[in-house]
Amino acid sequence: MMWQQTIIHIPPKARGFHLITSEVVSQLPQISYYDTGVLELFIQHTSASLTINENADPTVRADFERHFSHLVPEDMPYYTHTYEGSDDMPAHLKASLLGHSLTIPIGSGKLMLGTWQGIYLGEHRNHGGQRSIVATLNGNINQE
Amino acid sequence: MMWQQTIIHIPPKARGFHLITSEVVSQLPQISYYDTGVLELFIQHTSASLTINENADPTVRADFERHFSHLVPEDMPYYTHTYEGSDDMPAHLKASLLGHSLTIPIGSGKLMLGTWQGIYLGEHRNHGGQRSIVATLNGNINQE
Amino acid sequence: MMWQQTIIHIPPKARGFHLITSEVVSQLPQISYYDTGVLELFIQHTSASLTINENADPTVRADFERHFSHLVPEDMPYYTHTYEGSDDMPAHLKASLLGHSLTIPIGSGKLMLGTWQGIYLGEHRNHGGQRSIVATLNGNINQE
Repeated sequence: MMWQQTIIHIPPKARGFHLITSEVVSQLPQISYYDTGVLELFIQHTSASLTINENADPTVRADFERHFSHLVPEDMPYYTHTYEGSDDMPAHLKASLLGHSLTIPIGSGKLMLGTWQGIYLGEHRNHGGQRSIVATLNGNINQE
Repeated sequence: MMWQQTIIHIPPKARGFHLITSEVVSQLPQISYYDTGVLELFIQHTSASLTINENADPTVRADFERHFSHLVPEDMPYYTHTYEGSDDMPAHLKASLLGHSLTIPIGSGKLMLGTWQGIYLGEHRNHGGQRSIVATLNGNINQE
Repeated sequence: MMWQQTIIHIPPKARGFHLITSEVVSQLPQISYYDTGVLELFIQHTSASLTINENADPTVRADFERHFSHLVPEDMPYYTHTYEGSDDMPAHLKASLLGHSLTIPIGSGKLMLGTWQGIYLGEHRNHGGQRSIVATLNGNINQE
């Protein structure tokens, strides 16, 4: 049984949805030690999110940005938290609609993502800066 | 302390929301071994989802299908990922709005769901096929 | 390695979003024992939710209530689950949009929330009553 924890720093990204699977996995070589377990990723911000979706066609990510900006528009007349810019309150709402953490099973030293699944970072601010993700691993270590 | 992991195969279901609590629990008799722990369910697809909601009245599930299809309509003019059919891009978006995994506490050998809570599978494609859910159990084994 | 589990009872709150970080943490003094681990919070209801968002300005919570009530209006003509009141079906939908559980990493005896992150309870009923949250702790105990 072993716990490991590390903070992954993601350099600033443009507003939108970004496939970060390899950026995350390359910083967690210790996944290969685990026979059975889970990886928990937790983003320490309130205007960016983590979700899982299609890892192949980039138009899916572009459609995500368009649809979430349609679902949570800027400058709604009922917003009162407006002093941090038009993109701020929608960013908070999108972050909670999508979520702040992912728990991904590990089996035989690998993340058990489906064939078409990848990890998305949702950057919901126009200029979001660096983002920090706490990665916590827990599981049985393989006995090879 | 014990980890167990298994893949549950859910036969093809119609588009909509389905109560799968007993279908899941019946395939995990080992839940009863755990004194304190968690069950993590993770669906390995990008156009189906897992969520928790009301386990009694089927009209709740029907209203879920209607409301999510209202919130994420087909054929929005800004969709560019369109070559897999009108139901495909909305299915990806619904999957991320609802989420891909559930973490349910276990106490005294049972899932600690509330009285009215059940596990829903959201099938967001018109013809989604079989769905795979990775079930990972982790906890203290009871010493009876 | 240690598991602990407790049920936190949250007294009735008004419809809307409530910052409950200190209400939760004050009932979990054992967090300080954990060197590395996770806290899982699971709300045992289908018309209330847990999410993470901005812990400072209360207008963010007010805008959450307004936006989620805009996104999931009462009395939509396609709702058929209507006999529990106009606020009931929207409450179920909001609960699944936001989610029923949070998994928060623990490091060096503290929740690893970001500077601006707090725990929100979303009360989606007009008169929701007391809410129960199962808190499950798992991790390495520090050896001081």
